[in-house]
Amino acid sequence: ADQVALAAAQDRNGQLTKPPGALGRLEDLAIWYASWRGTPRPTIDNPQVLIFAGNHGVCAQGVSAFPAEVTVQMVANFQHGGAAINQLSKAFGAKMDVYPLDLDTPTADFTEHPAMSEDECVSALQTGWNAVDPEADLLVTGEMGIGNTTAAAAVAAAVYGGDAADWAGRGTGVDDAGLQRKTDVVAKGLARHRVDDPLEALRCLGGRELAAMAGAIAAARHYRIPVLLDGFICCAAAGCLAKAADGALDHTVAGHLSAEGAHRRLLDAIGKEPLLSLGLRLGEGSGAALAIGVLKGAVACHSGMATFAEAGVSDG
Amino acid sequence: ADQVALAAAQDRNGQLTKPPGALGRLEDLAIWYASWRGTPRPTIDNPQVLIFAGNHGVCAQGVSAFPAEVTVQMVANFQHGGAAINQLSKAFGAKMDVYPLDLDTPTADFTEHPAMSEDECVSALQTGWNAVDPEADLLVTGEMGIGNTTAAAAVAAAVYGGDAADWAGRGTGVDDAGLQRKTDVVAKGLARHRVDDPLEALRCLGGRELAAMAGAIAAARHYRIPVLLDGFICCAAAGCLAKAADGALDHTVAGHLSAEGAHRRLLDAIGKEPLLSLGLRLGEGSGAALAIGVLKGAVACHSGMATFAEAGVSDG
Repeated sequence: ADQVALAAAQDRNGQLTKPPGALGRLEDLAIWYASWRGTPRPTIDNPQVLIFAGNHGVCAQGVSAFPAEVTVQMVANFQHGGAAINQLSKAFGAKMDVYPLDLDTPTADFTEHPAMSEDECVSALQTGWNAVDPEADLLVTGEMGIGNTTAAAAVAAAVYGGDAADWAGRGTGVDDAGLQRKTDVVAKGLARHRVDDPLEALRCLGGRELAAMAGAIAAARHYRIPVLLDGFICCAAAGCLAKAADGALDHTVAGHLSAEGAHRRLLDAIGKEPLLSLGLRLGEGSGAALAIGVLKGAVACHSGMATFAEAGVSDG
Repeated sequence: ADQVALAAAQDRNGQLTKPPGALGRLEDLAIWYASWRGTPRPTIDNPQVLIFAGNHGVCAQGVSAFPAEVTVQMVANFQHGGAAINQLSKAFGAKMDVYPLDLDTPTADFTEHPAMSEDECVSALQTGWNAVDPEADLLVTGEMGIGNTTAAAAVAAAVYGGDAADWAGRGTGVDDAGLQRKTDVVAKGLARHRVDDPLEALRCLGGRELAAMAGAIAAARHYRIPVLLDGFICCAAAGCLAKAADGALDHTVAGHLSAEGAHRRLLDAIGKEPLLSLGLRLGEGSGAALAIGVLKGAVACHSGMATFAEAGVSDG
């Protein structure tokens, strides 16, 4: 982040026509955003939403409430404008791009093999990196992939420790028996792949859409594009970056707290406090896209308000 | 609310391309909004933000961190587009109107006299009622008035019981001594005006901007315009309506939880769970205006998404 812009934004914030601190977290958000954009009075004009879709070999183990063909069906729905993320992107003025990642070739079942070869993982990371528009001024990364809460739980457990049961959740809505199967599958994956490197965890237990999100979040750092993190799967991908390098997520804010059970644990692990908590558990970047509105509001106040001097208001 | 539209909206929600319940509270919000608008597939095209400003005789008791002239100064700031609420209204596509209410004639100091005469209170209620655009499809009511957290605390205590200390808070930022003065002033007001009627509490302990907000919220009910409630002062005004008639706030949702200490208690009293909790304590309708984005997102998803049948997606 740009320390000069940070200091200038803090100074500006102190002069705006409001009691000190009265805009609460909006003030911190605006100052954080200004510091990453390198200007004390930024605007948000060009948000980008990226959706990556992948299929998962582990679906063969019966870990999802939906059949695997829903991934490709939902990609078509994204492309035709019918999904939740289409409506939210439009509502908050974001352009949205969808990347189906080799949907005809699911990852390998991680209870038996590494989910991806090195080439496959690097290719997905690169797709994510290259998908980021260097001219964007805000990024949301979302995903679609039947089975991917199972992959995310395995990645989170490998990177942040704990048992399979701490990280496995109900995803799109599995019943108790499904949750038990999912927990067993995660435990099996952890036993098979004893990885201590976070990117190796991403490769062996994750999936292409998780790798692509990690690549996009890293690219955003390179371009100084602030990122709103979505739910459990996005944060599992982001968590690999955070574990790999201290401060790797300083350019990110958690858009929301998902209803997926282990998301709070994962947010605690990466040290993020969510902006919203409205019980969403859809993925697709939906929670983060909803938070675009909050961030836009914060930046609009910061950059658009009059100072006490400009407005001729007594400052207490 | 329209029970036919409600049922049709619930039915539509069940067919949209997402796992059941995966949009969490957004689903409830959209269905609630549809029921009040009387259509299963509503849109939000014309939100209105109303700001009422009043001055308070009780300021003579030293209850605020800011001098009373800030009220009229901030009205000018609203009129020139420099306040937080101007930026938020613009960001979320709302038109905003400001009503200064006899600023040269503060209410009476409620530790000595009723804050308003009956004529004054009725006039403020009418101004609020008449300020609502019957063509608006969403309403936010906000306020400005140095000293009005003291008035709101007194009204809340009179209507919902408890001690002065339960309801007095730091407002724009009083220190410990200021908070003690404020608590004493509220206690004195409660002792002087032993009112058991909520509209009488509004008259004796409230202020013109509180009465105007109550009038506007009541008018919105008449026109079936859903309302996003703002923070402590707005909810104190709304609470008078709720106490006067069961269900009087069914057309409202709490936009946010304010950092003003007693707002949680007041939300519990009126039975509302806030959409946002970001530490705002500015007033001006700012927290509710920020929540317009959440509600717009909810309604956009509900009315814009494809159904499973339309999109050709397997529904699990």
